[in-house]
Amino acid sequence: MERSNGRKRVVIIGGGFGGLWAAKALAGKPVDVTLIDRKNHHTFQPLLYQVATAVLSPGEIASPIRRILHRAKNVEVILGEVTDFDLEGKNVRMQDGSNVAFDYLIVAAGARHSYFGNDQWEQFAPGLKTLEDALEIRRRVLLAFELAERDAYLTGVKRHLSFAVIGGGATGVEVAGAIADIARRALASDFNLIDTRRALVMLYEGSDRVLNAFSPELSEKAKKQLEDLGVEVYLNSMVTKIEERRLNVNGRWHNADVIVWATGVAASPLGSKLGAETDRAGRVKVNSDLSVPGHENIFVIGDMANFVQKDESLVPGVAQGAMQMAETAAANILADLGGRTRSNFEYKDLGSMATIGKSRAIADFGRFELSGFPAWMAWLFVHLISLIGFRNRLFVLWSWFWAYLTRERNARLITGDAEELGIASEPAGKKVGAKKRRTPVQ
Amino acid sequence: MERSNGRKRVVIIGGGFGGLWAAKALAGKPVDVTLIDRKNHHTFQPLLYQVATAVLSPGEIASPIRRILHRAKNVEVILGEVTDFDLEGKNVRMQDGSNVAFDYLIVAAGARHSYFGNDQWEQFAPGLKTLEDALEIRRRVLLAFELAERDAYLTGVKRHLSFAVIGGGATGVEVAGAIADIARRALASDFNLIDTRRALVMLYEGSDRVLNAFSPELSEKAKKQLEDLGVEVYLNSMVTKIEERRLNVNGRWHNADVIVWATGVAASPLGSKLGAETDRAGRVKVNSDLSVPGHENIFVIGDMANFVQKDESLVPGVAQGAMQMAETAAANILADLGGRTRSNFEYKDLGSMATIGKSRAIADFGRFELSGFPAWMAWLFVHLISLIGFRNRLFVLWSWFWAYLTRERNARLITGDAEELGIASEPAGKKVGAKKRRTPVQ
Repeated sequence: MERSNGRKRVVIIGGGFGGLWAAKALAGKPVDVTLIDRKNHHTFQPLLYQVATAVLSPGEIASPIRRILHRAKNVEVILGEVTDFDLEGKNVRMQDGSNVAFDYLIVAAGARHSYFGNDQWEQFAPGLKTLEDALEIRRRVLLAFELAERDAYLTGVKRHLSFAVIGGGATGVEVAGAIADIARRALASDFNLIDTRRALVMLYEGSDRVLNAFSPELSEKAKKQLEDLGVEVYLNSMVTKIEERRLNVNGRWHNADVIVWATGVAASPLGSKLGAETDRAGRVKVNSDLSVPGHENIFVIGDMANFVQKDESLVPGVAQGAMQMAETAAANILADLGGRTRSNFEYKDLGSMATIGKSRAIADFGRFELSGFPAWMAWLFVHLISLIGFRNRLFVLWSWFWAYLTRERNARLITGDAEELGIASEPAGKKVGAKKRRTPVQ
Repeated sequence: MERSNGRKRVVIIGGGFGGLWAAKALAGKPVDVTLIDRKNHHTFQPLLYQVATAVLSPGEIASPIRRILHRAKNVEVILGEVTDFDLEGKNVRMQDGSNVAFDYLIVAAGARHSYFGNDQWEQFAPGLKTLEDALEIRRRVLLAFELAERDAYLTGVKRHLSFAVIGGGATGVEVAGAIADIARRALASDFNLIDTRRALVMLYEGSDRVLNAFSPELSEKAKKQLEDLGVEVYLNSMVTKIEERRLNVNGRWHNADVIVWATGVAASPLGSKLGAETDRAGRVKVNSDLSVPGHENIFVIGDMANFVQKDESLVPGVAQGAMQMAETAAANILADLGGRTRSNFEYKDLGSMATIGKSRAIADFGRFELSGFPAWMAWLFVHLISLIGFRNRLFVLWSWFWAYLTRERNARLITGDAEELGIASEPAGKKVGAKKRRTPVQ
């Protein structure tokens, strides 16, 4: 590519919260920026579980990256998959063999769920990190009800459905709450033969409380709210094996029509190609200015970064962490160019929240904690204003308002070929097993 | 299934306009109805092209069939794929080997596009009959722009994109107009390196005018409107071969980054299993009461039916035809049960319309014809009130209003794995060729 202006080229890998905020911080500044992502859209991950549970449509929580950045004329967005680096030559290597040159590099390729070395579990228990994941879970959940109704029609046997969610963090709690909600409210009047309200929703957590990033009091309240919704919460429950429609918990087999994996994190494998030390989750141990030891022109931010705070805890893998790191990395590049000193990263915890079904949530703002309806209102507000794009905000508000008033779900579509639908034989697992899934590179 | 009430069982195959309207006509009547579809949703096909061109999201033009019919307690909806019939035993056979018994049968399994015996063309030139088709076309169109931008970045070569649409009927005209619109308006400001407005959109029609179901005057106006949008319209142009990213027209090869197939119709293969005569497109030649010759308890309606009108023309394969047939078939079943005489089907042409990009359309209401902006307003109105579900109407109105005001497109997402995205090597054809596509059974 022509680069006649003599300006430094900053290449950003990833269009998630980290990459996008880095590009925004560099927009209009005296650098040329290239953002590379293998998707054309930024996904608002905190609401993915609402796509997985048919509340929102994919288009409502995702926006084309180049649309978001279209006013930033010094930012070029390209679709591509980065597979490696040529650190000496300052090149990023793409899957098709082409190179993209950089002076500065910001690696923000995120993380995916980890199966702790048991990747074969993924076909039986998909995780929730991308829109495709969300659509796959939505497909399985909706399909389970359809197949139970069909079986009741054909055989007269009315099965009670069961759903298992593994992991009691925010995603697990949100998915379990939303499935309970769907079964008890949204679907109940649409099925003639089966009673969707009798579906079992089980949440398995390995530690002794759910949402253990929160205070023990809020954890307890969240558990209570889940149980009010009808979710069975199993604490101290280690899942040691997953097979088609069953999982082994503390040595005993439990059956489940649909299993969702909501635990474990593995940073993008790109981290291991930067020649720096990584932790067990594959995160790169970064310097205090977020650069990679030995490569002061390369920054790693977001879920890929292992940044130790003063209290020795790690910056959590949340949107706020990625966005704040993006700003520091961008500022440090501009500091270099302006001959100023780099600053060290410091994470400001703005609070955290999790929602549990309709009208319930917990929130921790440091100085005060909320639970129940007030927490839910706070959750709605924060997520609505954080969504990217005025249009998405309007549409999501509209969808939530509609769902709240009518109990209807906007997005109850099962898409895919009939074969994929599994209506030929068994619902779960098989077909998806055949579909090759991979850890994403960004 | 238990059937203790002694009521007759009407089985309906298909949840399109025909099947759904038949179910509605039988709702609350003294019959037990079972509607079988291999999708869980009804798709509003007249707006599929807007999903293919990123104006609308799938959820906006599709509704779960069991939601639409949830108040009709004598109607059971089951997800399944019908593969055959046991006409003597009065059973419908499903793909998993199970049987569904009927007293009356309404077959409304629709049609798909036909490649006239060249099914290998589908991978290079997908058609537009289902939501999956629409998403595939959307993916290819959006991806073509992304890859051109990327190539411009990596190599400095700015390609001009070209899009070919085969078939000058309503679908072809609508798709061509909408692609021209997207290239000239929605995307123009988002790409830095390529000029999306210079994309070529070519429409190939075998006969001597587009939209030849309309009057020659309206055809001429439609062609003019297309050309105003920048579409190159080629009449008397027979496509004789399609390969990856090129097509042979009247003996000459034309290149195109994306090819859309918008011609040819093949009725569901289920028609051939009813033991009745079918026409070249696989449609069943039905009696004047819409029953199948030799089986007075079996009706075929909609795109699957070959019904000859008094003027010897066939009832066209449009939503109105299917809906009207559905009402007659349902009424004839109820007539049997009530000891009344069946009535013969008569098609009432309520007019037809086609839209051409933003703010343009043609409409033929029999007594008068419209074109340009008034026709477009009429088109908007008719499609909005025909959409199923108050919610969908609101959301679509909202999306259209937004798109009209801002030129933005709601649904510019490229979904699928990176491999499917083809960003490893070449964009078109290959990956989809690997994906098995089949003619639908309903």
